[in-house]
Amino acid sequence: VIMATGHAQADPMLDKAAADPANWAMQAGNIENHRYSELKQITSENVKDLQVAWTFSTGVLRGHEGGPLVIGDTMYVHSPFPNKVFAINLEDHSMIWKYEPKQDPSVIAVMCCDTVNRGLAYGDGKIILGQADTTLVALDAKTGEEVWKIVNGNPKIGETNTNAPHIFKDKVITGISGGEFGVRGHLTAYDLKTGKELWKGYSVGPDDEMLFDPEKTMTWTDGKMAPVGKDSSLKTWEGDQWKIGGGTTWGWFSYDPETNLVYYGSANPSTWNPKQRPGDNKWTMSIIARDLDTGVAKWVYQMTPHDEWDYDGVNEMILADIKVKGQDRKALVHLDRNGFGYTLDRVTGELLVAEKFDPTVNWATHVDMKTGRPQVDPKYSTLQNGEDVNTKGICPAALGTKDQQPAAFSPKTGLFYVPTNHVCMDYEPYQVEYIAGQPYVGATLSMYPTPGSHGGMGNFIAWDAGTGKIVWSKPEKFSVWSGALATAGDVNFYGTLEGFIKAVDNDGKELWKFKTPSGVIGNVTTWERKGKQYIGVLSGIGGWAGIGLAASLEKSTDGLGAVGGYKELARYTELGGVLMVFALPDSVIKQTTVAAK
Amino acid sequence: VIMATGHAQADPMLDKAAADPANWAMQAGNIENHRYSELKQITSENVKDLQVAWTFSTGVLRGHEGGPLVIGDTMYVHSPFPNKVFAINLEDHSMIWKYEPKQDPSVIAVMCCDTVNRGLAYGDGKIILGQADTTLVALDAKTGEEVWKIVNGNPKIGETNTNAPHIFKDKVITGISGGEFGVRGHLTAYDLKTGKELWKGYSVGPDDEMLFDPEKTMTWTDGKMAPVGKDSSLKTWEGDQWKIGGGTTWGWFSYDPETNLVYYGSANPSTWNPKQRPGDNKWTMSIIARDLDTGVAKWVYQMTPHDEWDYDGVNEMILADIKVKGQDRKALVHLDRNGFGYTLDRVTGELLVAEKFDPTVNWATHVDMKTGRPQVDPKYSTLQNGEDVNTKGICPAALGTKDQQPAAFSPKTGLFYVPTNHVCMDYEPYQVEYIAGQPYVGATLSMYPTPGSHGGMGNFIAWDAGTGKIVWSKPEKFSVWSGALATAGDVNFYGTLEGFIKAVDNDGKELWKFKTPSGVIGNVTTWERKGKQYIGVLSGIGGWAGIGLAASLEKSTDGLGAVGGYKELARYTELGGVLMVFALPDSVIKQTTVAAK
Ligand SMILES: O=C(O)c1cc(C(=O)O)c2c(n1)C(=O)C(=O)c1cc(C(=O)O)[nH]c1-2
Ligand SMILES: O=C(O)c1cc(C(=O)O)c2c(n1)C(=O)C(=O)c1cc(C(=O)O)[nH]c1-2
Repeated sequence: VIMATGHAQADPMLDKAAADPANWAMQAGNIENHRYSELKQITSENVKDLQVAWTFSTGVLRGHEGGPLVIGDTMYVHSPFPNKVFAINLEDHSMIWKYEPKQDPSVIAVMCCDTVNRGLAYGDGKIILGQADTTLVALDAKTGEEVWKIVNGNPKIGETNTNAPHIFKDKVITGISGGEFGVRGHLTAYDLKTGKELWKGYSVGPDDEMLFDPEKTMTWTDGKMAPVGKDSSLKTWEGDQWKIGGGTTWGWFSYDPETNLVYYGSANPSTWNPKQRPGDNKWTMSIIARDLDTGVAKWVYQMTPHDEWDYDGVNEMILADIKVKGQDRKALVHLDRNGFGYTLDRVTGELLVAEKFDPTVNWATHVDMKTGRPQVDPKYSTLQNGEDVNTKGICPAALGTKDQQPAAFSPKTGLFYVPTNHVCMDYEPYQVEYIAGQPYVGATLSMYPTPGSHGGMGNFIAWDAGTGKIVWSKPEKFSVWSGALATAGDVNFYGTLEGFIKAVDNDGKELWKFKTPSGVIGNVTTWERKGKQYIGVLSGIGGWAGIGLAASLEKSTDGLGAVGGYKELARYTELGGVLMVFALPDSVIKQTTVAAK
Repeated sequence: VIMATGHAQADPMLDKAAADPANWAMQAGNIENHRYSELKQITSENVKDLQVAWTFSTGVLRGHEGGPLVIGDTMYVHSPFPNKVFAINLEDHSMIWKYEPKQDPSVIAVMCCDTVNRGLAYGDGKIILGQADTTLVALDAKTGEEVWKIVNGNPKIGETNTNAPHIFKDKVITGISGGEFGVRGHLTAYDLKTGKELWKGYSVGPDDEMLFDPEKTMTWTDGKMAPVGKDSSLKTWEGDQWKIGGGTTWGWFSYDPETNLVYYGSANPSTWNPKQRPGDNKWTMSIIARDLDTGVAKWVYQMTPHDEWDYDGVNEMILADIKVKGQDRKALVHLDRNGFGYTLDRVTGELLVAEKFDPTVNWATHVDMKTGRPQVDPKYSTLQNGEDVNTKGICPAALGTKDQQPAAFSPKTGLFYVPTNHVCMDYEPYQVEYIAGQPYVGATLSMYPTPGSHGGMGNFIAWDAGTGKIVWSKPEKFSVWSGALATAGDVNFYGTLEGFIKAVDNDGKELWKFKTPSGVIGNVTTWERKGKQYIGVLSGIGGWAGIGLAASLEKSTDGLGAVGGYKELARYTELGGVLMVFALPDSVIKQTTVAAK
């Protein structure tokens, strides 16, 4: 139920489209980031019969993240750079229109983790595309014609875009990438009708630029919420370092109409060499809740103060009304890169749960629930071990126990289905100088499967966010870099880097798998048309985990350390770019329907 | 039955592999170029249930011609430039090895009709790859290691390779591309064991370089076979023009162990401006039969003397023992680009049948059966109309009633299943100068669907080569640029440029279709593994018909005139490069097996 308490006007077109489970009208299925569908033609009984219904090549190689949108008879598919957009007629799979922006390809060199794009947004009769070069363009959903176009950043200083713009009410919300280039992150709201900038909230810097109210912006302090106070960010940086301090905003955003708050995370502080930036580096690595209308932060919580491992805090915030430690809560659930699964009260920002969602996480022993700070194990502190020292065996690796691959929440089971990494690293920080538009990394990394474990680099897990416990964990050979889908049919889907799409039941039992053309880092989606439920996923290896293949890198420590760890991938898959669509055969649907009666 | 009458040693490995219908050991399924399989698990009854079994992205975009080879548990897949080769373990679809040659990408600019490659050859434990840059490389089939490597031409003067090498006994046979660059074509035999050149027969030039014996090389003359005589080629060219005279050999080759003859066709004379090269331009546009051991031509037949329309004669020669005009014949059947379907006696070279396989062919009224020459309609003679005059409404267009897309022959029905074009053109020749390595075309073309017909640009037809009659013709929106497959299950397959793979019964009734990721210009193949019959096809738009998409060309007359004609393709498909594999669901196979008992 959407209750407009803020001043923003709801977008009736989007609200209507999103309310119908036959559509998949936003990247996460809903504004709460559930990636859950009420559709249940495909069940744990019949999913074994799932078949490929049709396919569509985007004509682009490299990593295909995000997924298609489906609104009525039209599907909207996007591609990585050069960020093509296709409107596909679902009747005959021909193209209604296609759009290909002209972009300076030099932007590719300043994209840290492949030329990915996490998808389109739909609202007010428009399709919003965030181009790699930070151009945000609104296309007429019917014709593909440009309605408005603005520029959100400057690739010449390393600012790029990979995030999916999100439409909440009358606003388009977008972030910015470039933490590996010293970009100072911000979340920005544009007017959906005109593209006019409405507000911009930086992650770091002076209060007014962060839209932080020293008195009213709250944070978890000594076991309760308290105002952040004046210069809460500036105080945690040395001199002007915040100006190249990172805290980019390249992940997923969610929105609660009741609180009128937008929830998202900020990424790592720049550089990766912690020695060079003393202090907590606030508010990098933080969950931030901002008023949709004004952008003012209502509350904030920093997960990894003074990051020493590149544990960006951008992973999605899932808004769920669940029991937490026995009590009904309006919760925000966030499975962070640092390996802790956090549950907060999304209204107040109170910290409720913070537990490891991979037991092998070792950089911190636990999170102190009073201060909210992780207790760092000095053995794995790249700061304490110092510059030019290779700290070995840190778990998780820089790409975290989970990276951008979004989890799904099933209101039916109350559980979170989480695609995870099971990777550790060696990390050697070194002195680096900031030069605008050049990498500002300052660390050499090697990654490898978690030692002494099942040998694989990933798990697909079920997470109980109310207690902070792993319910089950299904090992995978490689990181599960694809977004999950949970359904009312008691089947959960995800893709693998080798290229499988898999279905598991609510107990994690594998029921079906299919080998798609390339590795899967897209997010699984579902929709219905003419009485048939479809499952869709983009197949196309890449992203950080697949950067070796995507960018033809061979040195183990290249690709920010990912190349060596994932080198075996080359035995399983090649680049691609294909939307795969699945459905049950008519005969099975008939049986299912009969059985249901 | 293979009877070795020549001196060449049979290759037992290939013979054994090819004899087993569970394999698909050569591009055409057999040396007679049948593209027919004895497999019949998939029938006209159950083909409607065909489903995608697995998929594999090659990581390369642009036109994917040819098809995979299957030998036992291993599949060998190739790609267009850069001509990757993958050995795939059919048990788990992982790669056993992959090979990627380093080639100077400047070769792309001298490939007339996309960066296609028509596939690999298997024999003597080796996989033979013909690279775009004319390097011919033998790889160890088990390890992918290079066994030998030779160079067959020089891209700097426009010599390139797109043809599939063919292995006949102990030899690798390959041709050369570059007719649009004044390349003088030749067929060359290399030793399968060592890569040593054994013989080379040019299409045009002095007798000794053509390996023509003035007394023993025969041709159809006044209703019977007679020796070609001395200087049979030189006499039909002005001065040295034969040196840049074309007659390239980029098509398919076949072999009859009984006659020990290799059969193939030669392409157009260069330039496309007929005024600049008076004479019959022998032996361009010809069917040539050469002794496998010596390369000496036993007979030759020119289909289009003094070409004025670019009707390359390279289409495949299908060797079939059929009734021709009531008499049992060892026939050679050739559906030529010029729109005539030819049936010859493959032992003697006698002309038996020459009839239009598209009734709208208009450039010639008929073939004079005594002289073997087409009777040109002066209205469509680009020579008679002259330079800088646009001759309009010529049917077929330059890409012919059929281009490289190979037909299938079913010994069961005795019919040929032929993918065809249904396209006409305007053709305006102009003066052009030869500059080595530069296009030597000399004509501006426009292409369009055959006027006054069904509106589409293609047909899939059944052809009776014994009588020269179309048995049925199934219209298609675009040219059928994919190779056909006929099966003992009474189902015939082909792909379409929009991206469908289709199955029709022996009467041309469409039984099934599936939308693959991209347009299909690959050739459909079939094999069996663990009791299951599979159908495979490469999906990836390109080739001459798809050059607008493949090379991002937009001007109508670009791409040698193909861009305008096929511009609507952009509404249906994007570039891709995916192997699609299909099979029946287990439940259907069980039913079929039960029913068969
Ligand atoms: O700091 C940044 O600005 C930034 C940007 C991105 C991005 O935009 O893709 C990634 C990361 N960091 C990053 O740390 C990371 O692990 C990552 C993975 C991926 C991906 O798509 O696979 N992108 C990014
Ligand atoms: O004259 C030549 O050497 C030559 C080469 C090729 C080739 O190698 O692909 C084609 C042609 N000509 C040609 O005329 C033609 O229609 C054609 C179509 C295609 C194709 O793969 O779609 N190649 C070629």
